[in-house]
Order: sequence, then C-alpha cells, then structure tokens
Amino acid sequence: MNLARALPILDWGRRYDRQTLVSDLVAALIVTIMLVPQSLAYALLAGLPAEVGLYASMAPLLAYALFGTSRTLAVGPVAVISLMTAAAAGSIAGQGTEAYREAALALALLSGLMLLAMGLLRLGFLANLLSHPVISGFITASGLLIALSQLRHILGVPGGGDTVPQMLAALWPHLPSTNPATLAVGLGSILFLAWARRKLKPTLVRLGLGAQPADLLSRTGPALAVVAATAAVPLFALESRGVATVGPIPAGFPPIGLPPVDVALWGKLLVPAFLIALVGFVESVSVAQTLAARRRQRIVPNQELIGLGAANIAAAATGGFPVTGGFARSVVNFDAGAQTPAAGAFTAVGILVAALFLAPALAMLPVATLAATIIVAVLSIIDLKAPARIWRYSRRDFAAMAATIAVTLFAGVEPGIIAGVVASLGLHLWQSATPHAAVVGRVPGTEHFRNVLRHEVITFPHLLTIRVDETLSYLNARWLEEFVLEQVAERPALKHVVLMCSAVNDIDASALESLEAINHRLGEAGILLHLSEVKGPVMDRLKHSHLLQELSGRVFLSQHDAFSTLAADPDGMAAPAPDPWGPRGLI
Amino acid sequence: MNLARALPILDWGRRYDRQTLVSDLVAALIVTIMLVPQSLAYALLAGLPAEVGLYASMAPLLAYALFGTSRTLAVGPVAVISLMTAAAAGSIAGQGTEAYREAALALALLSGLMLLAMGLLRLGFLANLLSHPVISGFITASGLLIALSQLRHILGVPGGGDTVPQMLAALWPHLPSTNPATLAVGLGSILFLAWARRKLKPTLVRLGLGAQPADLLSRTGPALAVVAATAAVPLFALESRGVATVGPIPAGFPPIGLPPVDVALWGKLLVPAFLIALVGFVESVSVAQTLAARRRQRIVPNQELIGLGAANIAAAATGGFPVTGGFARSVVNFDAGAQTPAAGAFTAVGILVAALFLAPALAMLPVATLAATIIVAVLSIIDLKAPARIWRYSRRDFAAMAATIAVTLFAGVEPGIIAGVVASLGLHLWQSATPHAAVVGRVPGTEHFRNVLRHEVITFPHLLTIRVDETLSYLNARWLEEFVLEQVAERPALKHVVLMCSAVNDIDASALESLEAINHRLGEAGILLHLSEVKGPVMDRLKHSHLLQELSGRVFLSQHDAFSTLAADPDGMAAPAPDPWGPRGLI
Repeated sequence: MNLARALPILDWGRRYDRQTLVSDLVAALIVTIMLVPQSLAYALLAGLPAEVGLYASMAPLLAYALFGTSRTLAVGPVAVISLMTAAAAGSIAGQGTEAYREAALALALLSGLMLLAMGLLRLGFLANLLSHPVISGFITASGLLIALSQLRHILGVPGGGDTVPQMLAALWPHLPSTNPATLAVGLGSILFLAWARRKLKPTLVRLGLGAQPADLLSRTGPALAVVAATAAVPLFALESRGVATVGPIPAGFPPIGLPPVDVALWGKLLVPAFLIALVGFVESVSVAQTLAARRRQRIVPNQELIGLGAANIAAAATGGFPVTGGFARSVVNFDAGAQTPAAGAFTAVGILVAALFLAPALAMLPVATLAATIIVAVLSIIDLKAPARIWRYSRRDFAAMAATIAVTLFAGVEPGIIAGVVASLGLHLWQSATPHAAVVGRVPGTEHFRNVLRHEVITFPHLLTIRVDETLSYLNARWLEEFVLEQVAERPALKHVVLMCSAVNDIDASALESLEAINHRLGEAGILLHLSEVKGPVMDRLKHSHLLQELSGRVFLSQHDAFSTLAADPDGMAAPAPDPWGPRGLI
Repeated sequence: MNLARALPILDWGRRYDRQTLVSDLVAALIVTIMLVPQSLAYALLAGLPAEVGLYASMAPLLAYALFGTSRTLAVGPVAVISLMTAAAAGSIAGQGTEAYREAALALALLSGLMLLAMGLLRLGFLANLLSHPVISGFITASGLLIALSQLRHILGVPGGGDTVPQMLAALWPHLPSTNPATLAVGLGSILFLAWARRKLKPTLVRLGLGAQPADLLSRTGPALAVVAATAAVPLFALESRGVATVGPIPAGFPPIGLPPVDVALWGKLLVPAFLIALVGFVESVSVAQTLAARRRQRIVPNQELIGLGAANIAAAATGGFPVTGGFARSVVNFDAGAQTPAAGAFTAVGILVAALFLAPALAMLPVATLAATIIVAVLSIIDLKAPARIWRYSRRDFAAMAATIAVTLFAGVEPGIIAGVVASLGLHLWQSATPHAAVVGRVPGTEHFRNVLRHEVITFPHLLTIRVDETLSYLNARWLEEFVLEQVAERPALKHVVLMCSAVNDIDASALESLEAINHRLGEAGILLHLSEVKGPVMDRLKHSHLLQELSGRVFLSQHDAFSTLAADPDGMAAPAPDPWGPRGLI
C-alpha cells in the first residue's frame, strides 16, 4: 500500500491492457510531433544548444512516469522555466560557454533535489507562498520578457539582457541592420503559426475531418512550420542571405552522468534553483489538478514533488536542463487520449527516435522559426485582463500582482518572483495588523447583530458591543487596546463593554496581555468587560490563563444572551454568573 | 495645535508653576543619585570608558524633555541596549580602541535617525513585529548574558565573548587565577546590593521613616555601595592587592560634535542600529505606557519615536552611546513625584554637576562594584517563570520565545532578536495556512450553531454546514478546497453544503478562485454550495467577482435561515432566492 503510494506505477501498471496501450501510443505519437520543435525552441530560449532540449524531453518523462501521480501530465522544458534558467545560468557565465551549460545542469540537479526533499518532508504547502495573483502576474511578465527576448532572432540582429530596459538597449542600436530574409522567415512563421492556432482546426473540420482529430492535427502547426522552414532554407539559399540556422545537431543518445559536485557554483545557484523548483511545482500541479478533475482523478501534491524532483534529477543526469509539467503539451496528451503515465514514457522513446534519426535533418532549421514558435506560444499565456479583474476584486492582491509584474519586467525573473512573495506576505501581515472592527447592535425582532453603520439596529448608551473581525495576535494587540479605549472614551454613560468574538479564531499571548490591560483599565473606570460568542478552541486556551478569573464581567455563550442580560442592567451591577461553558469547553 | 503635538513642551511648559518645579527638582535629585553609578556601570557593560556613561545621561535627557510625550520617562543608558551596543561595536573593533568608540557613536546616531524617521513616517507599528513573548524571552536571555559577562569583573580575571559558550570558554582557563581581594569586593557588593534591594526599605521603615521616603532612599543602594567601595580601596590598599579600579575619569563637559560620516562603517551597523532602535522603542514605550496609565495620562507612540530619536542623536553629538527609557529609573522618577519632563532636564544638570565635581573622586571605584550593580539589576529583569506560563497558554508563542532565548544565549543578541521576529512571523503564517474548521449543527431549541464534535446538535444527512475559523487567503486556499471536498466525499446523501462565514474576515483573490473551484466541483456532483453569515465588507468585495452569479446555491444572511430553509429541501431543488443583502451591502 505504502509502496504503491511512493511508486504510482505499481497501481496503474497492474491494470495495464491492450486498449490502454493503444490509447497511450496514439497520444505519445501526437505529443512527440508537438514536442520536437518545442524542445528545440525552449533550449534556444534557455541559451543552450538545440540538442539539450531533446535530451531534456527523454529521461525526465521516464522518471515522472515512475513517480508522478498525474495520469496525463506531460513534463519537459517549458517557456517560463527556460527563461529562469537563462537568467540564472547567465549570471554565472556567458551563453555558449561550457560553464553556462554546467550551470544549467546544476540548476536541474539542485531544483530536482529540492523538490525531492520537499516531497519527502511533506513541504508541499510551501507552494502556497505563491498566491494566484503573483503567479498570474509572473507568468504574464515572463511571457512579455520571453517574446521580447526572441525579437532579435526574428530580426536577425544581436541582442541580450534579462530585463525589458536591458533588452531594448541591446536591441535598439542594431535595428537598422535588420536582416530582411530573416525577418521574412520570422514574420512568415509567426503568421502561419498564429493562423494555425486559430484557423487550422476549423479549416480541417470544413475539409471533412472530425472535431477531435482536427483539433489534434491543428496542434502540429509548429512541426509543419519547422518542416516547411527547414525545406525553404536550401530551396531559396537563405543561408547566403544571412538567415541563421540551428546548425548541426549531434545525433545520438544523451550523455549520461551526474554533473560534478561544485560547492561554489551550487551556493550561487541555491536561490534561483529554489525559485525554479517552486514555480515549476506550482505550474505543474495546477495543470495536473485541472486535468485530473476533468476525469475525476486525484493527484497527490507531495508525491508530485517527488515525481518532478525525479524528473529534474534525470534531466541533470542526461545532459538536460530544468523541466516541469507543461500546460499545452499536457492538454494535447489528455485530448489525444493518454490513459496512463506510460504515454509519457512512449513520448520519451519517440523523442529518442527523433534525436537519433531526425536531428541531422534539422541543421537547416532557421532560428527565426523557432523564435516564432516561442513568441506565438507565450503570447497565449499572457493574460492582460487579469490585472483589471484583480483590481476590481482586491486592491491588495492587485498591489502584489503589480509589484510582481513591474519587478519582473524591470529587474528580472528572480527579483520578480521574490518581490511577489514578499509583497503578498507583507500585505497579509499588514491586514492582520490593521483589522476591521465594528460597533454592532441588534437587528430589531431578530437575534442577529450587525454593524451600526450599515444597518438599523438597537443600541443602548450604557452598553457597547464591539465585534472584532480578526484573529487577535501580537500584530494587532496594540491596535485593539487603542480601538476599544477610543470607543469607550466617546461614551460617558457606558457601563458594559462586550467584545463579540465570533470572528476571533485565536488569541495569542500578546493579545491576551492586551485583553488583560483593557479589562484592568475599564475596571478602573467602573466599566465591566464581557466576552461573547467565544469559540471552543479559543475558550479552551483562555482557561489556561488568568483572564477568565480576572474578567470584571462575564463570558456569554451568545451575543443575544449578552445583549438581553446587559440591556436590563443600566447600572453595571451584574454579578458574574457561572461559566456558561462548563466542562464541555474542555472536550 | 500641531506645533504643540510636535513639541509637547509647549503644552506642559505653559502650565509650569512653583509647585511643579519643587516636585520635579526633588525627583531629579533622587534620580541623579541613582543614575550616576548606573551610568558608569552601563558604560562598562558597553565596553566604553566610564565617562561615556555620564555623557549619555545629559544631552539625551534634555532632548527627550523637549520632544517626548511621557511625563515621567527617564532616558539614558540601559542594560540590554548597552549589551547590544557592545555586541555591535565589538564586531567592528576591539574594546578600548578609537574605532570601537566611534562605532558606539555611530550606533547612537543611526538608531536615532531611524527612530526619528519612523516617527515622522508614522511607522510605530513596526514595533508590533516584536511580540510580547519574544521581547520577554529576549530580555531574560540578555539578562543572563549580561550577568555572565560581568562575572570576570567579580573574579578579577580576563574574559570576553558575545554568547554563553564564548564567555564560558574565555572565563574557564582563568578561573584558577581568581583574585581573592576582587572577589571579596565583588561578592560583598552583590550581597549588600541584594540586601539593600530587598531589606533596606523595611529597615528604614522600622527605623521610623515613612514608607515613601524609605522606598526612595532604598533606591540609593548602588550609590551607597559605590561610595563605600571607593572609600575602601585606599583604606585597605586594595589596588596593591590586584583590585581593578575605574581609573581617572576626565572631569568636564561632554565633547560636542556629530561623529564623522563613514559610509562603510554605517553600512555594517545598519542592522544592529535598527535592532537597537526597535528594542529600545518597545521597551521604552511599554514603560511609558505603564506609568502614564497609572496617572490616566496618554503617550503618543509615534511622537515617542521622535523623542527617543532626538535623545539618541543628542547622545551621538555629545560623546555618548545608544540610550532609551529605562524601567527602574523611570519608576523612581515617577515615585519621587516627577510631574513633567523638566525633571529629566534637571537630572541632566545633576549628572553634569557630578561629572564636573564628583568624577575625579571616583577614580578609586572598584570595577567589581560596578559589575555587582549590573548583576543585581539584571537579575531582577530575568523572568524565569514566563516560559512556563507561556507554555501553558500557547505552544506557538512558547516556540517563538524558546527560539529567541536559545538563539540569544548561543548565537548572540542580534541573531536572537531576528530569530524571534522570524519565528513569530513564520508561526503566524503557519497558523493562517493550517486553519481550524468545524462541521456544525444546530443546538436544539436555539438559533446557535456549534461544532458537532463538542456539542449535542441537530444535523441532517443531506445538509453539511462547515464553519471555517480563519480569514480565507492564498495561504489556505488549497487547504480549503481539500477540506471541503474531503468532507463531501464522506457523505453520499449530501445535497447542500453551507459555508458559514462568520469567522471569515476576508477572502482574497486566491481564495476566491478556490471557492469558484469548489462551487464548480460540487455542482458537477449535483451538490449546491451556499454561503451564510457573510460579513458586510466581505460581501461588498464578492459583489465585484463572478462568484455570486455562478454560485449554485444561495447566500443566507443568517445560518439559522440557511439551516431552516435547506433542512426542508432534502432533494437539493431550492431555487436561488434574491440576494438578501440588497443594496445595503454596498453602503
């Protein structure tokens, strides 16, 4: 049972049959056709030789098939992780150097080990640190950075940089020397890919194809573009006109062997590797959950960490670079009918076949076409409407998102993701420190109590009920003291203050001291402090303090009870009644 | 009006009369007698020449008298801040060097500027980052470090170090060469001071003195010890027996002039200066608030920042070191009848007189006696019962406190305070990420809903009510999805799920997406999702989302309403009713 949880293959492998095999083989074939150009393109984006993209699409798929819990997730190089790899490796050495390649391998190894450790230690909740708006903002900003980084390949000019200003500054002086032939290939590829993405499926349907085959065939757009562009290079002598090509891709098996231990290098890559692990995990899990829900399957986040960890370690051991579950390819895998992770393993074999036999034929592939596939792919992940939607819903979430986008665009991917996490945490703490509280009264004819500012409610001059809408902690303990004493100062006839605790989910030691101080100060002014609607767990905890003994007033089970009792006691003479919670509160 | 707020002296200065003057002068005299030995002792603790302690007790008092809001706070060198100064300056240069002294001045200047900036920017809430248990643990651990650091002066041996292991390692090899005469003076001083602290007042009362004068006179214990020990040195030729003395203290005015701008030095001291500012502020404000409450006065925390900032800048400009409001001296000032900050100004004059005329006489003062005054003073701030009390109340607060104590003792004051802040924040976030939630039912014969595990309540198999006891945020959005779907999976007959939101104080964008996902998945399973007891501000926000339109069930104003309505609908056919909040929710 436990073994089956650690190795999901033992579960689905036992029930594997001919029907499943056929489904998985068909899905694998279609994903392979889609993945070959994507692998080459994302290697280019990561600043690595084209064959590295193929290597990263073999062993990692096998490793995930063994350990992952999603039936349909397709792992491999993805755009955002490739960009993060380029930024991190670029901080170590220049693109094209051996040190750069080693940095990419080290990133895969480190992030793989981190994912594995997080999975074994059940630390999947760390992914919570990336809120939806931060992830959404980061993906959008990364998409813009990626599209911009590929522009130079479309124009056939030099370029570089990790941020928008750097990229523009590097590109600007070379704009006049744009290569017309490269631009033609690049723009042509973009137009074809954009057309294929939106119109190929309806066209195929009009030609009589069924909806699903048409849908799957339409995903081969990038492969068609690659074939056509590669054929065009010798046909129109494009190389002599300055069109850059991928060049010879070495055919064969990936190099096997873990990268050397290099403590100095690893130290520098710890933070980027952690961010790659975190972003990769969050992206992959959200894709896997979406697809699993459609077929009423379940994925296990902590086991996913192990699966992705194994995939990245496998990438490091076979000359690859960081990988994760990709959205587009997983959807294709799902739609093509993949039933088990075996489809991923078959895809790996398909990529190996491509690496062995197809690679040499791709030497003439124009770089501009690969850049076009990247640009068209990432433009679909840019969600420019999200900021406005988040703005309408929550200014705080918008602030975190805006910080993420701005810092990513103007300072790079690592500062961007860190800014998002820090902004989210800071704003969350700020909210805890400045809670909402309301003076409430009774809605006539009911037992409900509502904000006096929003509803027509019954109140008394000798009785003040304050509902605190926040867990009481050290972050707002001082605020609480000030708020209560301020409200009290405005009401000279006051005899009773009730703190309605229905929204108080915890009272920590600092807040307890503040409550004791409030009780003491109100007592000196001849005002009794009461509590109402204290929750069970909070009451249990208060029983371990002196507050209940020292409280000048009473603890009421319900606010209605408190209000009725105290409304009838305008002189503040109510003697403390026995604790209404009895021993039950301790259960 | 605004000027009076920035310069509180304009307020109390206008009403200053002869009676107040007499009160303030008496208080100043008593505080001066108490402060002279304390100033010398804390300079010793900070690793600075004795006269620096006197300098730090003049100008800072004048500056605070101008800008501070507490009528009775007495500022000057205090134990914990002196220890933090020694740790920070010791990381720059060795004690006794010019660089060490400059570092102490720079610390005063930087922490003064930071306090001032925090005051002007209204950043007093930053002090909230230090929770009560963390401060309490830090003070206790610092007290132990301070007592241990003074042991070498009692034994008359070399020593040093910033942590318990370092101090013990430095002390251990020299124990056999303990100086008997020094030990006699040190132990004698400790015994006398301990006696004076506990028995001098009752003795004086027995001798016929009134309770209050006896109390105030008993505070002069350290001064008596200093006088007696200084007299004993020539009397018993203690110097020839190896008893170390303070040595010549230069008489005269403090040196005036701001320390030089040294960017490299300031960069290294930024963090310690910030921690000194934060700890000093928290300590000082808590003393000031305690005393102000006794006389029903108010202090203004943000103005206190300005007052303490001015005091520290004044210390830096007059050859001193970091200062803050001290507990013991402020209590004495209060008890001696100080009415206004003028008492502090008079104390400054008193210390100046002492520096001019008394200092030369103190050359023979044994260092062991000063160490004894420090040890006896700090042993009273060590609260060894607090950890047990906090443990009983809250394991989480205890964990933060224990981390603070352990790291302070074994890694030093700066890591200790940082560990406390990080542990508190981490545990706070951990709590947000793993909230309490309860399945609730109706208490028979009432409109109250309670946890099914704690109370005998009414439930139905087709109706599940979940009360979430936490604000919904990105930290617990995933948890919410898993919790709800798990509960639903256990109940095959389920038709209605009600999320009771009385304790949900906010729903951020990430949690909103999770609610939408829950609504969607329940909908697919033919289960309606309802909300009840949604608070006004939360409802306002939800109106800016699509959740309310897409919600399969209804939003009920009260849980009672939801329960009664849905209990009567076992087939889950309830048609959505009009939004019960109407336009009022938007007010």
